[in-house]
Amino acid sequence: MNYKMILRFISKILMMESIFMIPAYLLSVGYKEDAASKAFLITILFTIVISAVLYMLTKGPKQKFYAKEGLVCVGICWIVLSLVGALPFFLSGSIPNYIDALFEIVSGFTTTGASILPEVESLSHGILYWRSFSHWIGGMGVLVLLLAVSTGNEQSKGFTMHILRAESPGPKVGKLVPKMKQTAEILYLLYILLTVLDIFFLLLGRMPVFDAICTAFGTAGTGGFGIKNDSIAGYSPYIQNVCTVFMLLFGVNFSCYYLLLLRHFKSVFKDQELRLYIASVLVSIGMITWNLRGFYGSFGETLRHAAFQVASIVTTTGFATTDFDLWPAFSKGILLCLMLVGACAGSTGGGFKMGRLLLILKGLRRSVRQIVHPGKVEVVRVNGRPVDEKVMDNTNAYLVAYTLIMGLSFLLISLDNFSVLTNISAVIACFNNIGPGLEQVGPACNFGDFSIFSKCVLIADMLAGRLEIFPILILFSRTTWKN
Amino acid sequence: MNYKMILRFISKILMMESIFMIPAYLLSVGYKEDAASKAFLITILFTIVISAVLYMLTKGPKQKFYAKEGLVCVGICWIVLSLVGALPFFLSGSIPNYIDALFEIVSGFTTTGASILPEVESLSHGILYWRSFSHWIGGMGVLVLLLAVSTGNEQSKGFTMHILRAESPGPKVGKLVPKMKQTAEILYLLYILLTVLDIFFLLLGRMPVFDAICTAFGTAGTGGFGIKNDSIAGYSPYIQNVCTVFMLLFGVNFSCYYLLLLRHFKSVFKDQELRLYIASVLVSIGMITWNLRGFYGSFGETLRHAAFQVASIVTTTGFATTDFDLWPAFSKGILLCLMLVGACAGSTGGGFKMGRLLLILKGLRRSVRQIVHPGKVEVVRVNGRPVDEKVMDNTNAYLVAYTLIMGLSFLLISLDNFSVLTNISAVIACFNNIGPGLEQVGPACNFGDFSIFSKCVLIADMLAGRLEIFPILILFSRTTWKN
Repeated sequence: MNYKMILRFISKILMMESIFMIPAYLLSVGYKEDAASKAFLITILFTIVISAVLYMLTKGPKQKFYAKEGLVCVGICWIVLSLVGALPFFLSGSIPNYIDALFEIVSGFTTTGASILPEVESLSHGILYWRSFSHWIGGMGVLVLLLAVSTGNEQSKGFTMHILRAESPGPKVGKLVPKMKQTAEILYLLYILLTVLDIFFLLLGRMPVFDAICTAFGTAGTGGFGIKNDSIAGYSPYIQNVCTVFMLLFGVNFSCYYLLLLRHFKSVFKDQELRLYIASVLVSIGMITWNLRGFYGSFGETLRHAAFQVASIVTTTGFATTDFDLWPAFSKGILLCLMLVGACAGSTGGGFKMGRLLLILKGLRRSVRQIVHPGKVEVVRVNGRPVDEKVMDNTNAYLVAYTLIMGLSFLLISLDNFSVLTNISAVIACFNNIGPGLEQVGPACNFGDFSIFSKCVLIADMLAGRLEIFPILILFSRTTWKN
Repeated sequence: MNYKMILRFISKILMMESIFMIPAYLLSVGYKEDAASKAFLITILFTIVISAVLYMLTKGPKQKFYAKEGLVCVGICWIVLSLVGALPFFLSGSIPNYIDALFEIVSGFTTTGASILPEVESLSHGILYWRSFSHWIGGMGVLVLLLAVSTGNEQSKGFTMHILRAESPGPKVGKLVPKMKQTAEILYLLYILLTVLDIFFLLLGRMPVFDAICTAFGTAGTGGFGIKNDSIAGYSPYIQNVCTVFMLLFGVNFSCYYLLLLRHFKSVFKDQELRLYIASVLVSIGMITWNLRGFYGSFGETLRHAAFQVASIVTTTGFATTDFDLWPAFSKGILLCLMLVGACAGSTGGGFKMGRLLLILKGLRRSVRQIVHPGKVEVVRVNGRPVDEKVMDNTNAYLVAYTLIMGLSFLLISLDNFSVLTNISAVIACFNNIGPGLEQVGPACNFGDFSIFSKCVLIADMLAGRLEIFPILILFSRTTWKN
């Protein structure tokens, strides 16, 4: 294990985090929020010191860097990032318990949006901003950002490759251009562009500037932390619809946008994952609207709530305009299934991913065919191109790990003796980075009542879900630490 | 598709079913149960006529028989068997609705034990016997029995092989001896021996003979239909403990018993699936007993109920001595996980199977290791022997199909608007051939309130679960019906 390079990387990530906190600090100062501004200042100084010490300790020539080190590095970085990121909540007294503060910031960075806070409107502007901004940097990946902004000579090719692969969601990383650094740059430019567009449309609907920025951060990262106790329910239908559209846009594979910019329209419209995503969204909205007939005042209102909740759940954002825990079983069932599937690979959304669902569906069809014709060898194809068997194997392994980890987490948090459905949906909501679940963790409730032990389990689930299991899983594998 | 051989096979299966019904008919006559005896007589005569006509129509020389035809044959046979087996319930007026009667007999043959009847003590002896006996013939497989008793020259080698493979549970069929017919014979002899032993021990506890026979049928097939409204709760602790032990025994891979008879003790004790099974049972009993402290009068009573329910659920039997829906969430969570896993491959139990769990766990460990050491090629081993990659692929495909079918069924039955947990557990209980679920389908309730549509979905689930998906799945595949 190349400890030196990992520590050096952590040093840089910490430096970056301290820079991220500066806007929140300035906001606190501007709004004269004493506790918050003090907390941010202490955290920033503390982080800079640690970062500098680590930097000093790890001077020396560059060395080789392997895939496993990329994974370990990503796993550790996210943990360190969270441990430090929780400090402002804790030091300002906004969240008096450190584990609660950690839950909140992990929920932020992993773009889950599950909160332990019963109400958020009493929080200071600086804290609210940091809470929402954590979604934005977590959505596209903070390490990807570091790769995008760092000078090219810093990284060996293998290093960037492994980091990008470990942090980006989906069964395989889509290189947009041959150079990894450029890919990271393009991804972030698209991300910033879409976020700015979102803010623009929200402002058009006369949303206050602070609200618009925070809401856009939560939408872009598919996070879901709101700055109001009723999430998005109190805003106008226009604003709700803007959110619906942008949530869906951020659930699309970003390489599609790059291809659109290059005017490769045909390959975007023929993309099978995108088609599956659009079809799932439309069918779900249709079925829920039908199932909810008579539930709201008018057809238009029903359609708006159905579309918003479907968009929020399938993209794993977790905003709400209504308490869907009160919906009939069929609608809740559809949402539960969408929670498990999640958005497109290469988007900021979480979950199992549409792309993986496509692969396992195609793999299953192949298996059935091979039972009927045992001699025939068949290759799975997506968008006409053959899929490497290694990717198929990894997707299957992912399903296995996904199922087992959720089962184990469900058992562990059951010790708190909440209802079975609460436990099932809490694990699904955290592991897939959604936010709200059903019953005691429904949209009108929060995660605050869970025990410290259960909160730690759910923190691990959120991290494992965001990093797609393996960077966290290999931290616990003996093979990783053997030389 | 070789329709002639399939029809001829159905003819034989129907003949066999009419023979199976004779004891139930005689019992009805003996107890002077008019409606039931008339119903059995009509069904038996009807079945014989159909069987004879089919036999006449399909005379001719034997032909080649492929794997897909074996699967199709097994799928169709089970459907025909159920359609006919439901007639006595329907004709005798015990279950006035034919779909309900079909649900009950499919639940019997597939050894599920889920009932639509609110109470069973008013049923006639003949009907109760037929209900329990359906578990016994479904447990080891009726087609396997046909292979065991038929004359050797009837079947080509490929034919018996494919039938046995399609009907026997587990990731791969364990040939005990080179000849398939002999394997089937040995399996049935062991099955009969254990059933007789079970009856013997139940009689020792002064259980009435009729009760002992029916209970043993339900135990041997890991079915779960009781002949009392409170399942096994009203019997003595001794009888409950006998049931616990025998349920666990019938959840073991039968090849272990064969090896024991051959005095290969070492290979039995080193069997990894058996170890996983025993460990899961012991750990589950221990944790539930701990979780239930203070719930019952004494430690002994708690242990007895914990052991019984764990044995009943892990073997997918479904008997109950207490309403576990009232247990705390952690205990219910453990039962829910056991429901999904199920018993050993090659036993009469259902579920995903311990053997498959072992394979996917080992497959996952290999995947993690290959991420750490990308160059290294590793083979998964069970009991020291390498596992064919084809078996690994099939197991993964099984997990995919298992997850998707359960998800889809859950959505479909959600239309009835029962609680979400009712729907989740109803699908799990039917698909894994267990019987009782939680909430509105808990041990104290029944499946009678579901709509006809939901009952049909659950019937399909029970069949797909018992036949391990593929024989049912390929009935719906276009490739199967193309020449």
